[in-house]
Amino acid sequence: MEPPAPRRRVTIVDVARHAQVSTTAVSKVLRNAYGASPAMRAKVRRAIDELGYRPHAGARGLRGQTYTIGVMLPDIRNPFFPEILDGITASLADTEYQVLLGPGCNGEKEEARVTEAMVDRGMDGIILVAPVSSRAHLELVGTAVPTVVVGRHGSSPLYDTVADDDIEGAALVVDHLAGLGHRRIAHIEHHETDPTRLREMPNARRADGYRLAMRAHGLEEWIDVVSTSYTQEGGYRGTQELLARHVPDRPTAVFAGADIVAMGVLEAVAEAGLSVPGDLSVAGYDNTTFAAFGPISLTSVDQGGREMGRNAVRLLLERIADRGRPSTQVILSPTLVPRRSTTRPSD
Amino acid sequence: MEPPAPRRRVTIVDVARHAQVSTTAVSKVLRNAYGASPAMRAKVRRAIDELGYRPHAGARGLRGQTYTIGVMLPDIRNPFFPEILDGITASLADTEYQVLLGPGCNGEKEEARVTEAMVDRGMDGIILVAPVSSRAHLELVGTAVPTVVVGRHGSSPLYDTVADDDIEGAALVVDHLAGLGHRRIAHIEHHETDPTRLREMPNARRADGYRLAMRAHGLEEWIDVVSTSYTQEGGYRGTQELLARHVPDRPTAVFAGADIVAMGVLEAVAEAGLSVPGDLSVAGYDNTTFAAFGPISLTSVDQGGREMGRNAVRLLLERIADRGRPSTQVILSPTLVPRRSTTRPSD
Repeated sequence: MEPPAPRRRVTIVDVARHAQVSTTAVSKVLRNAYGASPAMRAKVRRAIDELGYRPHAGARGLRGQTYTIGVMLPDIRNPFFPEILDGITASLADTEYQVLLGPGCNGEKEEARVTEAMVDRGMDGIILVAPVSSRAHLELVGTAVPTVVVGRHGSSPLYDTVADDDIEGAALVVDHLAGLGHRRIAHIEHHETDPTRLREMPNARRADGYRLAMRAHGLEEWIDVVSTSYTQEGGYRGTQELLARHVPDRPTAVFAGADIVAMGVLEAVAEAGLSVPGDLSVAGYDNTTFAAFGPISLTSVDQGGREMGRNAVRLLLERIADRGRPSTQVILSPTLVPRRSTTRPSD
Repeated sequence: MEPPAPRRRVTIVDVARHAQVSTTAVSKVLRNAYGASPAMRAKVRRAIDELGYRPHAGARGLRGQTYTIGVMLPDIRNPFFPEILDGITASLADTEYQVLLGPGCNGEKEEARVTEAMVDRGMDGIILVAPVSSRAHLELVGTAVPTVVVGRHGSSPLYDTVADDDIEGAALVVDHLAGLGHRRIAHIEHHETDPTRLREMPNARRADGYRLAMRAHGLEEWIDVVSTSYTQEGGYRGTQELLARHVPDRPTAVFAGADIVAMGVLEAVAEAGLSVPGDLSVAGYDNTTFAAFGPISLTSVDQGGREMGRNAVRLLLERIADRGRPSTQVILSPTLVPRRSTTRPSD
């Protein structure tokens, strides 16, 4: 079989000639800039479709834009992140921007590699989802390229942030479990020691919110935090620790800091021959498809992943258009979705 | 806060001077080319680390290489794909190549957009996971850039392929269920009408393998294929259809063509107030973390996702080094992982 013959590349000049407009007008439409009327946009888009024009990212890179947005995802297995990604891709669907994901980040070193690769490849903007890097590294990225940090608190003049109110989210869980009559409510947190991350990471805020809410309900003496990690393995090990205790010291409910942690909780409970919610009520955080999955039916906090993704894109496009604008923090309000995994304590 | 001052970029010349070698030698090490001794590699890598040198992808693009590998994933929610991705990133960890993922592909139009974006951005190689595009489009991509197609059969001189033996995998499931005493074994397939895809897609091969194995076991009259899609929703709808039948016509076992389909099966069974495996044995395909998850414990076919990813990288690097070499097909042998979701039929 013969490889197809290479065709001459359709250029912006061809598009302008075909649409009978100036190349400047085509460029405006491609950049989604102000000053292009709806009629002009329609004319140019029709010409682009009819000619099969594709902007040449490499060539544009030399002129300053590659129409590429880099998204760093820390863990492709965590079922919460696709929600954020859906919001991002949906918001960019009608633009010329292409999303490319940097995978496999599970530490500062890997994050440095991915973010540097994105800067290096001339991406027009970067969205970092739940990064663990130092503030200094995030600011270095934000200095190089317009940057939005999603799922991490703390403000910087060098990047925008989108997060949910994690203290409120944790309170919703404790309110729900205390309302059902639980007092021995344990929390499985992601272990954190770095002072900046203790202030900024959602996991640390959720643990704070848990403690504050327990106090507010007069349950201070039952505060019980097991420190592992936001992984299935972390939930599994944390629960083994809780279940190894003598019965009066065992919790009757567990607030797992993320749905993926709750997966490990359910695994350990099943392995111990116990049942959810009969022996243990379990609540998660993120309201993933896993939580909504019928046979699991996990009570969880919905932090609106799609909405977070949409906000991240809005902030990023604003900052690409105006690098000098003041940085913005968007905080979204979470809601609780009660399901079958939580009920009244049996004792 | 002051943004950090921009530093002069470390260049390949600085690295060569620091390592006291030629720039050609540095370039060889960066490209992982032959002719660089281990001692030379160590010297250059040390200089790279000490100077903090980062290859400039944009500049390299002009000389022909961007050290970027594009990976197209059809569905970030399907828990099988992270396995392939792990194999890919692990194999590239010690090279200068960076993996960038193109997300959100669920049709030919979206695949065209992502693959064109990758070609457009000068990626050195592309790995397409389970693409649904026409053969002509895949060959167009393969002509533009070294390409490996993973999880799709059919050979072309213009790209390499890595797939598992899906006919054998389906036979392993039928052997297992027939061995337990099942005769009414239904299969939920991904609906396919395009003649090329019917020959090449794993889903079509699994349906073929199911039919062949049913015949081999003398169960021809019980062949029962429900045609939906390889999604959770597809498994859910397919199972509703099966359970709506009068009991003697209901299957006692279901072979879902993918674990994500089995998720929908489990959901529909639970909703109908029935139990797995008491009322219905269920088997999947892909042996994802979901299948291994204790409370689910789904019998599944392991097609070695990591091994597929590793093979894809090997073939791709070979083809980047030698565009003219003959195309290669790698077929891996699947294995069955029996778990608690399958047992003897109750009747």
